[in-house]
Amino acid sequence: MLWINKSGPDQRSDYRFISVDLNVITYVDQLMSVVALLQLNSIVGDITHNSSEISRLAAIAVENGATMAMTSELAICGYPPRDLLLEKDFVKRCEQAIARIVSPIPILIGSPMGPMESNNLPSNGVIYCSGNGKIKNLYRKQLLPTYDVFDEARYFEKGNGISIIEDPNLMKLGITICEDAWQHSGHVPSDYDDDPIAQLSNAHDSLSYSINLSASPYHADKEDMRLDVVRSAAVSLNHPYLMCNQVGGNDDLIFDGRSIISWPNGDVIQGPAWKEAIILVNLDMPKNSKIIEINGDECIFKDAKIFSINDKSKNIGGDLDILEAITIGLRDYCNKSDIKSVVLGVSGGIDSAVTAAIACRALGPDAVHGISMPMRYSSGHSKDDAMILIKSLGAHFHQLELSDLQNISEKYLNKLIPIDDSSVNDIYLENIQARLRGLTVMAYANAYGGMALATGNKSELAIGYCTLYGDMCGGYAPIGDLYKSEVYRIARLINEEARDNGKEPPIPESTILKPPSAELKPNQEDQDSLPPYEVLDKILEDWIERGIVNTEFDEKTVSWILKKMKSNEHKRWQMPPAPRVSNRSFGQGWRQPLAAKK
Amino acid sequence: MLWINKSGPDQRSDYRFISVDLNVITYVDQLMSVVALLQLNSIVGDITHNSSEISRLAAIAVENGATMAMTSELAICGYPPRDLLLEKDFVKRCEQAIARIVSPIPILIGSPMGPMESNNLPSNGVIYCSGNGKIKNLYRKQLLPTYDVFDEARYFEKGNGISIIEDPNLMKLGITICEDAWQHSGHVPSDYDDDPIAQLSNAHDSLSYSINLSASPYHADKEDMRLDVVRSAAVSLNHPYLMCNQVGGNDDLIFDGRSIISWPNGDVIQGPAWKEAIILVNLDMPKNSKIIEINGDECIFKDAKIFSINDKSKNIGGDLDILEAITIGLRDYCNKSDIKSVVLGVSGGIDSAVTAAIACRALGPDAVHGISMPMRYSSGHSKDDAMILIKSLGAHFHQLELSDLQNISEKYLNKLIPIDDSSVNDIYLENIQARLRGLTVMAYANAYGGMALATGNKSELAIGYCTLYGDMCGGYAPIGDLYKSEVYRIARLINEEARDNGKEPPIPESTILKPPSAELKPNQEDQDSLPPYEVLDKILEDWIERGIVNTEFDEKTVSWILKKMKSNEHKRWQMPPAPRVSNRSFGQGWRQPLAAKK
Repeated sequence: MLWINKSGPDQRSDYRFISVDLNVITYVDQLMSVVALLQLNSIVGDITHNSSEISRLAAIAVENGATMAMTSELAICGYPPRDLLLEKDFVKRCEQAIARIVSPIPILIGSPMGPMESNNLPSNGVIYCSGNGKIKNLYRKQLLPTYDVFDEARYFEKGNGISIIEDPNLMKLGITICEDAWQHSGHVPSDYDDDPIAQLSNAHDSLSYSINLSASPYHADKEDMRLDVVRSAAVSLNHPYLMCNQVGGNDDLIFDGRSIISWPNGDVIQGPAWKEAIILVNLDMPKNSKIIEINGDECIFKDAKIFSINDKSKNIGGDLDILEAITIGLRDYCNKSDIKSVVLGVSGGIDSAVTAAIACRALGPDAVHGISMPMRYSSGHSKDDAMILIKSLGAHFHQLELSDLQNISEKYLNKLIPIDDSSVNDIYLENIQARLRGLTVMAYANAYGGMALATGNKSELAIGYCTLYGDMCGGYAPIGDLYKSEVYRIARLINEEARDNGKEPPIPESTILKPPSAELKPNQEDQDSLPPYEVLDKILEDWIERGIVNTEFDEKTVSWILKKMKSNEHKRWQMPPAPRVSNRSFGQGWRQPLAAKK
Repeated sequence: MLWINKSGPDQRSDYRFISVDLNVITYVDQLMSVVALLQLNSIVGDITHNSSEISRLAAIAVENGATMAMTSELAICGYPPRDLLLEKDFVKRCEQAIARIVSPIPILIGSPMGPMESNNLPSNGVIYCSGNGKIKNLYRKQLLPTYDVFDEARYFEKGNGISIIEDPNLMKLGITICEDAWQHSGHVPSDYDDDPIAQLSNAHDSLSYSINLSASPYHADKEDMRLDVVRSAAVSLNHPYLMCNQVGGNDDLIFDGRSIISWPNGDVIQGPAWKEAIILVNLDMPKNSKIIEINGDECIFKDAKIFSINDKSKNIGGDLDILEAITIGLRDYCNKSDIKSVVLGVSGGIDSAVTAAIACRALGPDAVHGISMPMRYSSGHSKDDAMILIKSLGAHFHQLELSDLQNISEKYLNKLIPIDDSSVNDIYLENIQARLRGLTVMAYANAYGGMALATGNKSELAIGYCTLYGDMCGGYAPIGDLYKSEVYRIARLINEEARDNGKEPPIPESTILKPPSAELKPNQEDQDSLPPYEVLDKILEDWIERGIVNTEFDEKTVSWILKKMKSNEHKRWQMPPAPRVSNRSFGQGWRQPLAAKK
């Protein structure tokens, strides 16, 4: 089989592609090898949009000297496509879209791939796209993560071996996809039978480099782990290892980008975090590698810095990274769902303050509506703080005094639930307040076509200190994976960022300093019925993220908290998606039984 | 290794167990082979309860001549244990509980099983329980379903071969677990590499019988498929095949029991549906097999009827089966969560009527509270129908006229959402009504410690004709997997059942006959904005259950409905669990992206 491509906008398009066998393609060309990593923010299921973005970025890459391009994992359909993969023609539509991509250089595209045998599942694969209508299945992912938020064994059949191809400069390269590289460095929860890095290393010492198409979601402190994975592959293979990662938010999964290229000596080039980009890797002269940040139609050109194994990563990290993750999570959720504005209740407390600030950061203040809804137990400072917050953010402030509606609703409900009935649990009176506020926020959202934001944090969601259909109302829960102590840290960071930009810190000091209270009963404070948040959060984190029963604090407190946590599973079943920033979040990857003894 | 067991309550306890090798155990005994299938309703995670139930039923089996007993799949921890399996000591606790079981006969118990190698996942296995403290790993499930509601590859490592053991009468038997038998008859969505039935059949023509420990959830019309699976195994193996299935509801998964024993000629004994039971299979004289239905402490003895391949199944089926499934689903959800009462809004419409009737069937009318909450657009007949329904069910009727609260709430919200604002979507006024009712129902539930029931059906949930935090409020949605046309059929069935029992049919004829309406606007009828339910349901069913775009009806209608369906995914993300009665339900097995182009 001989494929010839003579079309294309510039002189680099005159390649000859020879398919040698099922897994090998040979190209003949005279240029230097410059591989473009297309770090894209794909929209799940939007095959047309994604393929045209792949073309667009590939064309930019060509203009800047690329001889070949590669995308992230499943870039043609976005990761994770979830049950869209079960739709009858979905895989075929991906393949057809790739065949329609026009490009003067070949592109290796992450795509689902039709099954090897009839009645089998499709594969998570890499398709060779010639750019002139010829496509070819190159590789099927071998390690299919099926834990936490990953369900790949549900959708895919694993591939049965490695693939080697030759690039346009006749350099041989090995192909891997995401998890394929992770077994080798041991960063997987349990062992796979295969180790594709070892397979490549054993089989082919003539390889010049290897590539990895990834969709590796962000969580705090994952960056070093991922660097280790890529470096360890480069060391074992004794050649450069190029990992192209997805960027952007898809529901509760957030991808940070940060594609990594590592050389066997530990030298690393890293793509930008939280941005679409092209990383132009010059394999012959690494120092000539470039990074092009893509900001809509704008291209920002940067030199690619090489970090040695001894350099500290120059990327942002820690709390700023978490803040970026949540921001991009909310922004992409809205953009990809065509949501133009958001609305939330603002109480003067820390949770709604941080949520509002993040919403402004994500969508701009003009798209954010904060509603203050004081009731009987709301303190004066709460009302003030809510107003100061929204006004200093520049968002839309609304106030609706609901004390009377609270009184009237209670009076109504007393016909159903008599005041003098001693068997009544008074908690319902607290919940009414949260639910009247929820009703108000939802009414505003429905009336103006916006989305309500839930303001609950992870500590509350864990122990059930949140009201279903009340403060849990909303299409997205920006801080749903932040422990209360993290919410405070992010609040301080938001204020610092404003100060750094010469602006007034939006979150009032009193919001940060006052003792947290739901203000649903007179003089109520969270600390009346809970241990201090430092203690609570440590106990929760130990259990949720490490599966450990904390032994540092009072045993009775610990067991009370874990019991509370387990008995509130039904609330989490109904919570909205929340951007995952921790190692283990409530969401797609949290699958607990309800009617069970836990 | 030689194990001797001389303890136990009767003379049958004097066995000698010889472990020949890792997968083979030999017993010596003089009795006839009577295998007891313990068709149990395990509580997920309640290892102590489940192990004592296994002991109790095994003791009853012994009294009635059993020489060996077997349970359903993962009976020690209930199926599906979901992420409880990730807890560090969970598998060990299961194994330890089995070691503590006292029984005069050996029991083969479905249990998670420690990993084969360190850093591997545990297995879904069968553990041999001597009844005197000795336990032994017998078999690891080979086919791990990972599709629809099943996530077994997430939790388990697959076994690497068959297991043969000898029973107390020196008869050799092969062991399989649930899915292991399904590849053979082709009733799996995609092909597995292995076929354990073929493995058994190829390896061992000296086998006397084989067993299968199952947790095969119910859906309508699955019964014949399961019969086919078991019969096909018996035919291929040329010996009896004994499948013991779990019974009862675990969250949204409902298990019908109906354990099946098939002989190679197609003869079948079937355990009861929807009931705990012991099936005593006399392998030498099948006609002497017995069924003991377990109703709490009461045992009801029945002869086991043998059905030939030509007999129609004598089990209930069709709509009555669906009604039983939902009833047991709700009952077990409440029992296993320690919920004593339920509360729901009753509108006079068909959905709340059927939900209320099912609640009474599941929990008894004294545990059911129906609240009628008329508002501005409620018709007189609706109020009457709601009252007649609840009174004829014998449940608790409450009425709270909410028109004034509706007026007041609207007036309040008009301060936020001006009446003369032409950009406002009036849908918010409809949602307020649903949400005020939701707030009222939740207040009653919270005040008295009951659980609210959501009354939405599958057709509504599909196209989003339901209000988040309104009629979707509730801890469980009994009819959430019934299309509207099914709701009507179940309503008629409930009335027939009452008539058959000499009672007044509880659901008023006018509820069944009047055109369905949400009554959220003046003179509103569902059919104003929707195609007739027969059409809607057919289009939905084709898409949801068969993945087919209906071509029988008007193309524009079909595409409008599928678009509506996809744009309402965010509501289903937050819906409560609903008992699964269809081939594909919204719930654990429905995993769609939200911010996506679908």
